[in-house]
Amino acid sequence: MSLVKLPDDVAITGNSKILLLILDGLGGIQHPHFGKTELQAARKPNLDRLASESVCGVLDPVAPGITPGSGPSHMALFGYDPIECNIGRGVLSALGVDFHLTEKDLAARVNFATVDEVGNVVDRRAGRISSETNGRLCSKLARLVELPHDARLFIQTESEHRAVVVFRGEGLSGAISDTDPQRVGVPPEKPEALSQEAKKSSEIVSSFLKQASEILTDEYPANAILLRGFATQRPFKSFYDRFKLKAAAVAKYPMYRGLARLIGMEVLPACEDMDAEIDLIGKELQSFDFFYIHVKKTDSHGEDGKFEDKVKTIELVDSKIPLLLALSPDVLVVTADHSTPSALKAHSWHPVPVLLWAKTCRVDDVVSFDEISCAKGGIGRMPMVHLMSLVLAHAGRLTKYGA
Amino acid sequence: MSLVKLPDDVAITGNSKILLLILDGLGGIQHPHFGKTELQAARKPNLDRLASESVCGVLDPVAPGITPGSGPSHMALFGYDPIECNIGRGVLSALGVDFHLTEKDLAARVNFATVDEVGNVVDRRAGRISSETNGRLCSKLARLVELPHDARLFIQTESEHRAVVVFRGEGLSGAISDTDPQRVGVPPEKPEALSQEAKKSSEIVSSFLKQASEILTDEYPANAILLRGFATQRPFKSFYDRFKLKAAAVAKYPMYRGLARLIGMEVLPACEDMDAEIDLIGKELQSFDFFYIHVKKTDSHGEDGKFEDKVKTIELVDSKIPLLLALSPDVLVVTADHSTPSALKAHSWHPVPVLLWAKTCRVDDVVSFDEISCAKGGIGRMPMVHLMSLVLAHAGRLTKYGA
Repeated sequence: MSLVKLPDDVAITGNSKILLLILDGLGGIQHPHFGKTELQAARKPNLDRLASESVCGVLDPVAPGITPGSGPSHMALFGYDPIECNIGRGVLSALGVDFHLTEKDLAARVNFATVDEVGNVVDRRAGRISSETNGRLCSKLARLVELPHDARLFIQTESEHRAVVVFRGEGLSGAISDTDPQRVGVPPEKPEALSQEAKKSSEIVSSFLKQASEILTDEYPANAILLRGFATQRPFKSFYDRFKLKAAAVAKYPMYRGLARLIGMEVLPACEDMDAEIDLIGKELQSFDFFYIHVKKTDSHGEDGKFEDKVKTIELVDSKIPLLLALSPDVLVVTADHSTPSALKAHSWHPVPVLLWAKTCRVDDVVSFDEISCAKGGIGRMPMVHLMSLVLAHAGRLTKYGA
Repeated sequence: MSLVKLPDDVAITGNSKILLLILDGLGGIQHPHFGKTELQAARKPNLDRLASESVCGVLDPVAPGITPGSGPSHMALFGYDPIECNIGRGVLSALGVDFHLTEKDLAARVNFATVDEVGNVVDRRAGRISSETNGRLCSKLARLVELPHDARLFIQTESEHRAVVVFRGEGLSGAISDTDPQRVGVPPEKPEALSQEAKKSSEIVSSFLKQASEILTDEYPANAILLRGFATQRPFKSFYDRFKLKAAAVAKYPMYRGLARLIGMEVLPACEDMDAEIDLIGKELQSFDFFYIHVKKTDSHGEDGKFEDKVKTIELVDSKIPLLLALSPDVLVVTADHSTPSALKAHSWHPVPVLLWAKTCRVDDVVSFDEISCAKGGIGRMPMVHLMSLVLAHAGRLTKYGA
């Protein structure tokens, strides 16, 4: 049996309350201009005090050197093997537009694109059309396309040239090759069935593309569609079935809400700001054992290279720590899904800092919540997928393994 | 191939001597009253000096967050995969009463219990009868029961209401459900065969229970028997076959002696105290390459919540370190099988501190042998199962892997 599934065998119910606070993309590297990581630069007295009462460490979301997308890093956070449970791009895109996927759905990421008179792609993003145009075209396609094999079509705008398509039918398969050629000057690829089981799916997709090409013929520059990341999603064994935790997700962005829903968390209504979120958690505290709280802006500022804004977001979150502690959690964890150093303007492979605060901690001598200090903490360096076991143990929710 | 089995392929013989000193349950957490772990509180100049000349670290017996029983944690210490080599409760109980199991044996843990006139369990522990009564009842059962299928019965007192039963026969299987219902007000469960191969075993067990019920009918409150943890034990590949080490166990408690015997260690005669044990090791030094030395009291005091007694045991062991060094070992390791913080009065999941002393160490800057200091040592945080590879390497007993 895999170590990742070990907690399932020993999980027990209980009354303890767990808060998992995720600052998306929190981890950084020293910025060449500022000479520090964002965490090192931030004034964060509450997080530092928490660290001094906690056990700290750094976590590898997938493996050393591997830069994860949000899918695998969140699966690892939630205690699911990030490789075995990797989620296809189409499915992640569907979660990102708040589409409620079923087991009969085949999803793919859509680019509206421009093709010339002989059918070669000249712009893979159709001049970044407006989201309004995108919305109008999606409605038009949804209205006019008729799929074979009794399949149903859903097509939903993401933004600009980006959309998501979902085919719903019996026995669909994600084993279909991308039609996006990833370069210009060539025609879109055919959606080839990569296995015998995918033949029906490829017929449905081909029929969709043929009709879309006719329907969009006068919609220059968005006169074509490119598809990639075909994927279906069987449901995962739920968080409750695995860990006996009634879990709630407090997240604003659809993709994170969707990821939580995929493993059976209840997704609470989106709130205006963190104060409202903490209020809501207080009200729901008796109904759930575990709250996943997602803060997006640390990642967005990192992606945009905005060091100072990322620092400010950390400081804002720091100011809310007393409100979280006032909920009297048994276990409070502060960490990230992955690093997004503003010096790199992108996700990175650097391990993320983590602090775990609970009465049963073996408190280490880390007194600052930052990447360098945490690396010398009691958790050491650990694969992120084991974090949930540690959380459950400190919540008194794992019984002894073996006699 | 699994990393765990890698040392087997490169192990070579040699003349080096290895001492593995296990302080059972050594690891702790800061005690709320004393503000320190037991190791932090102990005066232990010898262990600290040893740490300053060693490489230190912390070990996870099974996986982060997982609290191990003594079985899996010892298997990990000895370099055996603690999950693949997990030992059933019945077998551990048999080892605990010094029963020498064979490959034909099916063992189970026994509770003497009380049932009412309609056969419902009213006390799962029969009012904690005396060990003497237990002994008399075991003798009576052994004398009177006659098993089908030419099976033989062994039943041996543990203490109070606890005993061990062993059925010896051809082709027995541990795939039998517990008869202990784990609650009162209901009758004992039937011993169901959980696989086709277990049918014969379940007939033997059923016959035993039927006869026991008649034999005990006038023995109120011990008028019934509950069984759990049915298990057989095929022998493991021996320590010598795996690591080319002639190994001896120096342990007082039967269970640890039994665990060592399971992997083919020679179990030396039990001694009065640690001085006598070290004397004995000195006498046997030429006959063995490896000595496993087990100290129980650190665990017992931890289980009892006796912080100061656990500290004293550590200090006593510390005072014997010069005697161990006087044996001129090539490798001396001091560690634990698992943590038993006196603050928790139970085994816990916290990783255990380890020091490895040898001429070939890359000495780190740890100068105190405690959990917090060791976590910053050169070994870092490591799965316990890899400790044996490290020990063998420092003993000059592993050759190069690959060309």
